[in-house]
Amino acid sequence: MTFTATVLTLYPEAFPGALGVSLIGTALKEGKWALETVDIRAFSRHKHASVDDTPAGGGPGMVLRPDVIAEAVDSVERKARPLICLTPRGKPLTQTMVREWAEGPGVILVCGRFEGFDQRVIEARGMEEVSVGDAVLAGGEIPAQYLIEACVRLIPGVLGKMASTEDESFEGDLLEYPQYTRPRVWEGREIPEVLLGGDHGKVAKWRREQAEQATKDRRPDLWARHQRRDGETR
Amino acid sequence: MTFTATVLTLYPEAFPGALGVSLIGTALKEGKWALETVDIRAFSRHKHASVDDTPAGGGPGMVLRPDVIAEAVDSVERKARPLICLTPRGKPLTQTMVREWAEGPGVILVCGRFEGFDQRVIEARGMEEVSVGDAVLAGGEIPAQYLIEACVRLIPGVLGKMASTEDESFEGDLLEYPQYTRPRVWEGREIPEVLLGGDHGKVAKWRREQAEQATKDRRPDLWARHQRRDGETR
Repeated sequence: MTFTATVLTLYPEAFPGALGVSLIGTALKEGKWALETVDIRAFSRHKHASVDDTPAGGGPGMVLRPDVIAEAVDSVERKARPLICLTPRGKPLTQTMVREWAEGPGVILVCGRFEGFDQRVIEARGMEEVSVGDAVLAGGEIPAQYLIEACVRLIPGVLGKMASTEDESFEGDLLEYPQYTRPRVWEGREIPEVLLGGDHGKVAKWRREQAEQATKDRRPDLWARHQRRDGETR
Repeated sequence: MTFTATVLTLYPEAFPGALGVSLIGTALKEGKWALETVDIRAFSRHKHASVDDTPAGGGPGMVLRPDVIAEAVDSVERKARPLICLTPRGKPLTQTMVREWAEGPGVILVCGRFEGFDQRVIEARGMEEVSVGDAVLAGGEIPAQYLIEACVRLIPGVLGKMASTEDESFEGDLLEYPQYTRPRVWEGREIPEVLLGGDHGKVAKWRREQAEQATKDRRPDLWARHQRRDGETR
């Protein structure tokens, strides 16, 4: 079974976009994962292919109609995949969610535009509302690509030997330790000596401390979660 | 002065990607903002155009060399723009950062790949480390597009009358209220009556309550920030 991402969007031409390059793009061409787009506009019954209307209660912008979105969603074969809509109101995407979805048959992603979806279609179709990052975008297409890349890179055989997928940021709610490579001295700056000594225990200890310090300094939210989790496993 | 995004990447062909569609893409074609890519690989002095090397201290994957990244960065005319590298170790992107950058001359974005950058070049060039979302990707290209779209949609004239950029998620650390549009009854589900009554005061009050409830339920982190901020302004 191939991991299949089906994306419902008003802009199918945005895909594969950045997903078409590098190892993720090669894996797509080799059939290690599959990408389908569904053009939401094709499900409009209106003569000017209108998919949106003004917000009930007033306010600027346009809202995606529930009937159009529902018909687009209902046209997709579910195949036990999660049905996710990308919206800033959603639950923040985490590496834990990504790991779970990457092991499954794929994802169905609905991309919002304008002022978003009519809330009734989210409820009626049981969509999971997911957000990526805390900024506001013009649409859900880039968050959808983010979610897909995060999942696909975990599929066995996609990254090959090029990278690790275990010892990295957000695993165990810690940021990753800093990295160094050649040259040993660059612009007068040296690689930390512990990394050059060949003592694997010391290297591991130093990296752990660096990861913890970076998490404390930069992400007190993750650090709190890490400590809670640490407490639970004791 | 036109907002200019300069992106340093190993995959220039990933751009404009999803930034080429919709109103953001139209604005790019109309010169309302500008996008330049710099191919990091062009700054390798190695015969096989190698830009990376193994991590000091061991471990899987490859690390981007400081000398190559520095030369690529030094080739870009800074023009008072922030120099940002996209990495999961970074400070999370917020709408406040986006608003500040959107008002300036643009951004310079360096996209990581593999196991990331040699830490020395980040320090030596004073790069701001920024992360988008809490999942791990194969590279910084999609986060760069995320950051650019978030900025560009705020540039006057880009979204036109299509959308509001003021009353939306993350403003004031609140999620947005739910939206509804026609039809009034869909699959037996009605638009909340308050939105149809025409009482602007009641609509505003209901929306405020909905935004607060959604933030409490879905984003206790934002809610805590919102309350701190609320306290400060009293």
